[in-house]
Amino acid sequence: MSFTLLKTDSKTKARRGRLVTPHGTIETPIFMPVGTQGMVKTLHPEEVELLGAQIILGNTYHLNLRPGLDVIEKFGGLHGFSTWDKPILTDSGGFQVWSLAKLRKITEEGVRFSNHIDGAKMMFTPEFSMQIQSVLGSDIAMLFDECPPYPCDEKYATESLELTTRWAQRCKDWVVANEPKSGNGKQMHFGIVQGSIYADLRERSAKELVAMDFDGYAIGGVSVGEPEHEMFRAIENATPHLPADKPRYAMGLGTPPQLLEMIGQGVDMFDCVLPTRVARHGLAYTLDGPIHIKNKQFEFDERPLCETSHPHVARFSRSFIRHLFRSKELLSARLLSFHNLHFFLGLMADARAAIEADRFTEFKDAFNARYHAKS
Amino acid sequence: MSFTLLKTDSKTKARRGRLVTPHGTIETPIFMPVGTQGMVKTLHPEEVELLGAQIILGNTYHLNLRPGLDVIEKFGGLHGFSTWDKPILTDSGGFQVWSLAKLRKITEEGVRFSNHIDGAKMMFTPEFSMQIQSVLGSDIAMLFDECPPYPCDEKYATESLELTTRWAQRCKDWVVANEPKSGNGKQMHFGIVQGSIYADLRERSAKELVAMDFDGYAIGGVSVGEPEHEMFRAIENATPHLPADKPRYAMGLGTPPQLLEMIGQGVDMFDCVLPTRVARHGLAYTLDGPIHIKNKQFEFDERPLCETSHPHVARFSRSFIRHLFRSKELLSARLLSFHNLHFFLGLMADARAAIEADRFTEFKDAFNARYHAKS
Ligand SMILES: [Zn+2]
Ligand SMILES: [Zn+2]
Repeated sequence: MSFTLLKTDSKTKARRGRLVTPHGTIETPIFMPVGTQGMVKTLHPEEVELLGAQIILGNTYHLNLRPGLDVIEKFGGLHGFSTWDKPILTDSGGFQVWSLAKLRKITEEGVRFSNHIDGAKMMFTPEFSMQIQSVLGSDIAMLFDECPPYPCDEKYATESLELTTRWAQRCKDWVVANEPKSGNGKQMHFGIVQGSIYADLRERSAKELVAMDFDGYAIGGVSVGEPEHEMFRAIENATPHLPADKPRYAMGLGTPPQLLEMIGQGVDMFDCVLPTRVARHGLAYTLDGPIHIKNKQFEFDERPLCETSHPHVARFSRSFIRHLFRSKELLSARLLSFHNLHFFLGLMADARAAIEADRFTEFKDAFNARYHAKS
Repeated sequence: MSFTLLKTDSKTKARRGRLVTPHGTIETPIFMPVGTQGMVKTLHPEEVELLGAQIILGNTYHLNLRPGLDVIEKFGGLHGFSTWDKPILTDSGGFQVWSLAKLRKITEEGVRFSNHIDGAKMMFTPEFSMQIQSVLGSDIAMLFDECPPYPCDEKYATESLELTTRWAQRCKDWVVANEPKSGNGKQMHFGIVQGSIYADLRERSAKELVAMDFDGYAIGGVSVGEPEHEMFRAIENATPHLPADKPRYAMGLGTPPQLLEMIGQGVDMFDCVLPTRVARHGLAYTLDGPIHIKNKQFEFDERPLCETSHPHVARFSRSFIRHLFRSKELLSARLLSFHNLHFFLGLMADARAAIEADRFTEFKDAFNARYHAKS
């Protein structure tokens, strides 16, 4: 068994776990920085290691388009190509087809679309997604799913869920037939629970995927424009139907308070472009909530971004980082990206320690109280 | 005496020297990376240290405009503000007024202009330039000069030179009267030789400045659009009239072969935005000449950018850096900036070793032969 459930919080559903992958062990709950093009935006792999990131994400849709599979195959996979030698999770490409590609047409076979770079016609199928991820050589591959939009009526959500289940079976069949060599033949495969905002559909999706016995389960179709309470409901509706001895991954989420809320619901893994994307727009996370570094109030501020800042960033004053940001210096995006990821990864480390000490609720309440006090 | 001439090459005028500044010792010949806004573009001070940079440049015009002197003064100067604790040279602001500002009007008093950010009317005088540089706390401050354009007739060049000499005296008077505390009262001051393409004017400018006894001498008014042979002639016309026991600095130059040519003419110090600017456009320097990383020929290239690459960059293939560049990832600008500066700084280290071994000509010829072989 690659996942070990070490401890469950007595007052919440928060879990402390350990996931062993071909490229290393991951302590959960964990936040996974996103490396769309093979590396976390603006950062050097040395810095991602310095941050203590245990696993990063790669994007199947983007990497298949550019540089293309033939290039990555020459380097023996994404690890060799990017020089990042720790665990990598790849998404299925489905979400990017949904959000970036044009002229999408979904059929039983898969999705036809025109790619967003040169408009060339392409087709993604469950089998092709698994094949790409096999070449990428990720430690964890995601099954190819259909991600319904929000809002979405129950009929569409039902049909979409049924398609996702059939595609999950085709993904599994491809893996069984092809025995991908990635991860020394130990690539893990996570199913994706869909069902939109409908509790019975979330339950049905979870049960159908669990019956197929995957290595882990993600909750998809969240963070697609729905209000926060619907997002939490989707998590609540799915997790009770997932096995305790497999990791659970909420896709594409969220803010620090949202992450703590979902950890309390029993989610183990998260990924989000938020910390690095907002960094490029000058936002820094602090224990007192986010700050916009361009604000005049920081003009003479000698303090580091946050009392928890890593020395790599803490050596700089808010005043200097504000100056870099206003001068459009790329170093500001680097420093804020590093800082925000350090904040998110530190939040996960604190959550793990709190679960171990059986005081997760107290930790969460204290964090939220300070985080929201000034806003 | 802060400058020591350690050795002169027997077949050229190349010099091996040592300059002691308040923030550290500089082995010459040396290339100085440019940190317009207080730090070298895209790089973290840790990386600039890792590169072995002995001194960086700061821009008086830019830093005075933004963040403004009151901010930098609060941090005790540019060293405290940027956290770069090694030597810093600041320019006088004159060159940026000439190249960036609008509605320039030069009078005996100084230069009136509208700044390039918000168009506000400002005035730079010799005294104000020295005052700004005193607040910046640079180890080496440049005198405020007038930089004539190219081409420029002899009458204009003569009057401009005379103005530069009078301004040099006013700079010196301000320093004597105000005893700037920067560098523990040991800030050095370099005069700037002007005279455009006219040999007699270069000689006159050099002699007038030398008579005022500054800590070093720069050759200015080069790299302003003139052909390469005029640039070399300006250097040749100035250096014979500069004292052997003071450092010589050619401003804003140049390509690797140009740097070697000028070292052979007895120049000790260089600065240029070239290695970092072209990096952002995907150009990498190699022993076989520059390469454009976006070129198709590097699609599958497993080699590092150059056999001399630093491990910080050499871990990546040309293929991966090409992918980052084509994907507009900021990491490519970082890696190419680091690589190019490493190339320029390595060239200086090799030149220093060659001068010490009295084989500078052989080194220069061998470098140029390979650098130009493929072009
Ligand atoms: Zn660091
Ligand atoms: Zn390194």
